[in-house]
Amino acid sequence: MNDLAQLNSKPFSDPNVPKAVVSRLSLYLRELQQLLRVGIATISSSKLGRRLGVTGAQVRKDFAYFGQFGYPGIGYRCEELIVQIRKILGTDRTWPVALIGCGNLGQALLGYHGFSKQGFCVEVAFDVDPNIVGQTFEGLKVQHLDHLPQIIEQRSVKLAILAVPANAANKAVDELVKAGITGILNFAPVTLNVPKNISVVGVDLAMELEQLAFAVVKQVAK
Amino acid sequence: MNDLAQLNSKPFSDPNVPKAVVSRLSLYLRELQQLLRVGIATISSSKLGRRLGVTGAQVRKDFAYFGQFGYPGIGYRCEELIVQIRKILGTDRTWPVALIGCGNLGQALLGYHGFSKQGFCVEVAFDVDPNIVGQTFEGLKVQHLDHLPQIIEQRSVKLAILAVPANAANKAVDELVKAGITGILNFAPVTLNVPKNISVVGVDLAMELEQLAFAVVKQVAK
Repeated sequence: MNDLAQLNSKPFSDPNVPKAVVSRLSLYLRELQQLLRVGIATISSSKLGRRLGVTGAQVRKDFAYFGQFGYPGIGYRCEELIVQIRKILGTDRTWPVALIGCGNLGQALLGYHGFSKQGFCVEVAFDVDPNIVGQTFEGLKVQHLDHLPQIIEQRSVKLAILAVPANAANKAVDELVKAGITGILNFAPVTLNVPKNISVVGVDLAMELEQLAFAVVKQVAK
Repeated sequence: MNDLAQLNSKPFSDPNVPKAVVSRLSLYLRELQQLLRVGIATISSSKLGRRLGVTGAQVRKDFAYFGQFGYPGIGYRCEELIVQIRKILGTDRTWPVALIGCGNLGQALLGYHGFSKQGFCVEVAFDVDPNIVGQTFEGLKVQHLDHLPQIIEQRSVKLAILAVPANAANKAVDELVKAGITGILNFAPVTLNVPKNISVVGVDLAMELEQLAFAVVKQVAK
């Protein structure tokens, strides 16, 4: 990152950045990482936009919430913009993450390598099932949920992935909030009751299938 | 759905609907379903937008790709707009879905009730592991991948969920394409090589964690 870019970045200056813009930051990040992997060092806003189905103007507008990252006549420097986006998203550091629920989904998530690639490290895992507590998955020994507050505090964990059945979700959330977790990625198909200062992102896998259905229907209609 | 709305809908008229617009359709759909559940029958574009962090103008522009669904002085009728969005997305019917890979992730997905709620029904499941083939999960008997072409054709399945390890993904995809699958929801962390007429949506769970990190960092900065 050069000094100019650093000087011009203004992360979090606008508390009202639309959710959709933040979602697109993740998409831009993935495209830039992909470009870099194939050896492309710079890209224009219009070309970056085209890869994601948005206009160049939209790309520039999205980044303008956070600073001025492009160079006249060059466009964006991929490597530098990756650094900037990670800084904005807060993924320029490694986040220790707690996994709550180590059934099928939890175990699948423990084996999911996409998290660590983007700076998220599942460091502690919890369950209440006596058949699961004490078992080791992907090198992690599952602890009983009763030990949550102590372990979370020791390790300064702020993010948790909730992969418990729907009927166990809100009880687990109460424990997480008490223990000092401030962000919850929720796979349980229920609305969580949390205080205002706790952020929740719900994962809705059916949405992805809807996008696919649209693409398939459009293809057939051609 | 009334006649006016039917008359005015023009699904698929624009083949270049931006991806981001289609993503937002899913978000609008969830909000409208939620509104209906709590007994709210109509909503203005600006209120609908506010719930998702976009402007009312953006909401109206998004829907304008597909038709005119609002009523002056009323806004959108939730129930009617749900029908319209499902029609646009192609989820006004039930889609039979094939699951490829019945390890931890596959089994978790079989138990995920969010799919059927939105019109997706996993009807057939496949694996190659002799310890898994023949087992029954959530009432579905796992078949060997060798039987894929025959079963897929018999049941006219067009969508598949790919939940296999990265190194098995492209081999499975070749089989899916040969069998006539046209849409693939990919959980394998690899880029799939598919012909142009096959749609692929990749699930990147780290993206959701990034959104959460952003929300938590923003909260701390307040």
